[in-house]
Amino acid sequence: MKLVIVGGVAGGASAAARARRISETAEIIVFERDSFISFANCGLPYHIGGEIQDRSALLVQTPESMKARFKLDIRINCDVIGIDSAAQTVRVRELDGGREYNERYDELVLSPGARPIVPAISGVDLSAVFTLRNIPDMDRIIRKINIDAPRSAVVVGGGYIGIEMAEALIHRGIETTLVEMSNQLMPPIDPEMAVPLHQEMRRHGVRLQLNDALQEIAEVDGRLQLTLKAGKPLVTDLVIMAIGVRPENQLAELANLAIGARGGIQVDRHMHTSVEHIWAVGDAIEVKDYVTGLAAQIPLAGPANRQGRIVADNIFGHPAEYKNTLGTGICKVFDLAAASTGASEKLLRGQGIPFEKIYVHASDHAGYYPGATQVNLKLLFDPSDGRLLGAQAIGPKGVDKRIDVLATALRAQMTVFDLEELELCYAPPFGSAKDIINQAGFVASNVLRGEHQICQAEQISARVDDALLIDVRSPAEIGVLGTIDEALNIPVNLLRANLYRLPKDRPLVVFCAVGLRGYVAYRLLNNLGYQVRNLTGGFTTYQMVKRIGI
Amino acid sequence: MKLVIVGGVAGGASAAARARRISETAEIIVFERDSFISFANCGLPYHIGGEIQDRSALLVQTPESMKARFKLDIRINCDVIGIDSAAQTVRVRELDGGREYNERYDELVLSPGARPIVPAISGVDLSAVFTLRNIPDMDRIIRKINIDAPRSAVVVGGGYIGIEMAEALIHRGIETTLVEMSNQLMPPIDPEMAVPLHQEMRRHGVRLQLNDALQEIAEVDGRLQLTLKAGKPLVTDLVIMAIGVRPENQLAELANLAIGARGGIQVDRHMHTSVEHIWAVGDAIEVKDYVTGLAAQIPLAGPANRQGRIVADNIFGHPAEYKNTLGTGICKVFDLAAASTGASEKLLRGQGIPFEKIYVHASDHAGYYPGATQVNLKLLFDPSDGRLLGAQAIGPKGVDKRIDVLATALRAQMTVFDLEELELCYAPPFGSAKDIINQAGFVASNVLRGEHQICQAEQISARVDDALLIDVRSPAEIGVLGTIDEALNIPVNLLRANLYRLPKDRPLVVFCAVGLRGYVAYRLLNNLGYQVRNLTGGFTTYQMVKRIGI
Repeated sequence: MKLVIVGGVAGGASAAARARRISETAEIIVFERDSFISFANCGLPYHIGGEIQDRSALLVQTPESMKARFKLDIRINCDVIGIDSAAQTVRVRELDGGREYNERYDELVLSPGARPIVPAISGVDLSAVFTLRNIPDMDRIIRKINIDAPRSAVVVGGGYIGIEMAEALIHRGIETTLVEMSNQLMPPIDPEMAVPLHQEMRRHGVRLQLNDALQEIAEVDGRLQLTLKAGKPLVTDLVIMAIGVRPENQLAELANLAIGARGGIQVDRHMHTSVEHIWAVGDAIEVKDYVTGLAAQIPLAGPANRQGRIVADNIFGHPAEYKNTLGTGICKVFDLAAASTGASEKLLRGQGIPFEKIYVHASDHAGYYPGATQVNLKLLFDPSDGRLLGAQAIGPKGVDKRIDVLATALRAQMTVFDLEELELCYAPPFGSAKDIINQAGFVASNVLRGEHQICQAEQISARVDDALLIDVRSPAEIGVLGTIDEALNIPVNLLRANLYRLPKDRPLVVFCAVGLRGYVAYRLLNNLGYQVRNLTGGFTTYQMVKRIGI
Repeated sequence: MKLVIVGGVAGGASAAARARRISETAEIIVFERDSFISFANCGLPYHIGGEIQDRSALLVQTPESMKARFKLDIRINCDVIGIDSAAQTVRVRELDGGREYNERYDELVLSPGARPIVPAISGVDLSAVFTLRNIPDMDRIIRKINIDAPRSAVVVGGGYIGIEMAEALIHRGIETTLVEMSNQLMPPIDPEMAVPLHQEMRRHGVRLQLNDALQEIAEVDGRLQLTLKAGKPLVTDLVIMAIGVRPENQLAELANLAIGARGGIQVDRHMHTSVEHIWAVGDAIEVKDYVTGLAAQIPLAGPANRQGRIVADNIFGHPAEYKNTLGTGICKVFDLAAASTGASEKLLRGQGIPFEKIYVHASDHAGYYPGATQVNLKLLFDPSDGRLLGAQAIGPKGVDKRIDVLATALRAQMTVFDLEELELCYAPPFGSAKDIINQAGFVASNVLRGEHQICQAEQISARVDDALLIDVRSPAEIGVLGTIDEALNIPVNLLRANLYRLPKDRPLVVFCAVGLRGYVAYRLLNNLGYQVRNLTGGFTTYQMVKRIGI
């Protein structure tokens, strides 16, 4: 068996290592265009920002260590420029010297990754405009910062890399503006869930310019002048382009492999492409979204590694299947974490998939133990049977834990009723006797059982009916945080004594800070025959929804 | 509907609140022997230790706030001393004044909790010997510490409360000895997994006296002298008895309710006891263990709260079932956390249930991002189909997250093969592209697929065969940490060049620090036809096993 792998980072390196573990005798050649293999690409922004001080920490494996451990033929600085699938050969160009040659394969694995999208606008090729994909890109940005000491920088694009780069630049003491075309950062989450993230960015000095787009870059007096679609021109010293990535599919196209609508190489569940003996993994391929079943590009390290294992298994006759991608992801944003798994509301709406949603805002651990902070959680589920569809969370602590639990529940096809039952770790420093996940299960299950009619914050913003709003918080809370105009204030514990103030012939909407006291008030009024709904997530969600796009 | 609830803490308070949310008209009476309801009993040791400074933070609800919010008739300082199940009345004694009266019920919920076990040895009734169950107990201990300034203390019992109390006493500057009858602290985990916990206790100054038992307490010159079964007598100023709890079943016994072998009130899945119109929840009942299906006493706050909801649902005609108890639990031990879910090896062995086990020791997040620490994970699973049976973890960070994910996977009846597929949050500050849970899935799945033959550390300790041990770590690591006697050292990357040193006719066992390089070495040698096994968890597990009971 002669296995040829194109690309030596996450998917390719995993495939090579797994292949060797399966077969001691296979010939395994890895071609890598760069000089680095299996490096920690997710760590690049953190080395720029200085959290990871030692550059060599990013070089998880060197070609030498991989060779020694796995007896691999690793050829760095080699570009694979063509495939002859009939002859089962690849055409290789050595970047040092330019020599070209053919290499035969029995099986070929493509793991070329994805490259940053650079829009076709004038000035993107200027030397102070950067993208960040690999170690040399990182080195160039660090050199620029160290040598030119830029006063200010602009990051274009608010995805994971844009957010991480903005934070890194702030850590380096550089005035940073982030320009994002849509009304929110971090596209996998919904806009209202991004609001705390926007606030966190601003709190740390990032200037956020949402709903705006870069149109042109010009060099003026040794600095860069950026023309924007909506905002005033920006003058800066450094630009990071981070508007997204595109699958590296040129080689696949040349070889006539089937390519999806979004540019990803199409593979079956065994990671096999449309052409015999050619397989593909990682950011370059199209996967299926676990929830919607739709084709998706989800360039994440976890799936790439997993696919690398699976492709090697299949090539060596151990059938293995890749079971779609949930897209579980997380981003550190200064002192916050934002994470999601499964489908977002945007995605479900876009696809016309029915869903219900609830919000819970609760402590990461028992409120009476020091250091408790709030987790904001949004849960999306199927209104017909309660099956989980997606979840998003944001907060200073405990966000990764909750989304990991929910990603596991999603993968297990659990319902919101199952979340009621989950037995999670509880001691005061770690959680609550009713964890926020249980609470989300309670709320969602009550909704589905018809025991809790909820109202969404956007319905209140849009004043969709003439419901009377009742704020059941204490006057002290309202004094500090404000309320929704026109809301009547009756604290929950005084509700029974104030029933005479409530009309029975007009719909009521109750709300509190997060929805818990609102639910108590809702049950009380519902039991007494009032037409009532409870604002899910309470005033906290309301404020997030009001601030979308700000 | 007239609902009477005996006990106003976790289960009783949950039942009362849920009952009111379901019915605005029901009459709901809560009898509580104490003056406090719904207090944070899990927080008591932390107030003693000073982490929770404000005592009132523990009073989650006061009788007044509960009354106001839920229109409950809460009668504190009232002891329910008898039940006439034919007449449907309870006999109540007011502890202030001693008046007795009967109260009728339509439905009766017992939530009396569990009381600390006090062994029948001489001296346990001395005034400096304490147990910790409720606020008055806590107040007494704090008063003792504040007024008498004890120099030293002895905690008897190494369960959750014993551990937390030892830590609290150390925080208060008191020399503390913990005496435990078995060879380990924290009974829900297995002894080798408790080893890091023992080390952490000692590192913080707790004197651990394992395999020993208290036999007598005597007052000598104003101090306490403790006679032990094995060790020398201890002289101390303060004793905390924390050897376990026993269900409060006297009332149930008087009413002829069915009681289980361990003293717990027997209930069906709806929380109904053996006598009509009487229900029971919380620490006083017997539950079924989720994994083994056996009767168990699992006194934890999460299940108690859940049962409180369920009992109210059933009483008011919304059928709901309690689905057994996983016993997920966690304990903070100074800077470590130890947690578990499902069955332990001890339990499985005791019941003769077949299992396989593997160990993984890996970083809580990407090793190249600052602050990574090791998580020690043990996974137990069914060797026939890979179904999860239990998991235990210990480490400074990320332990709660992993056990929560595994508790969810257990509840979903997932297998080790499913763990391979889990997509968990990954960014360098939060996890790894291959999380420790995925790694555990890989290891266990490889074992079940016959691709990885493992050896257990206790087999090596016991020298069950004459296998040749091969340490595939670097000489530098061995220099620092030591190795297993007689092991041949061949670093994994040099294995191919040293094959001539390995016999083909003798079994080999390879090992590294944690099992990962050992697996690479295993695959290499297995592919070449050697009789080889890999030590699961590597030298790390070996050292834990060697130190059991120390």
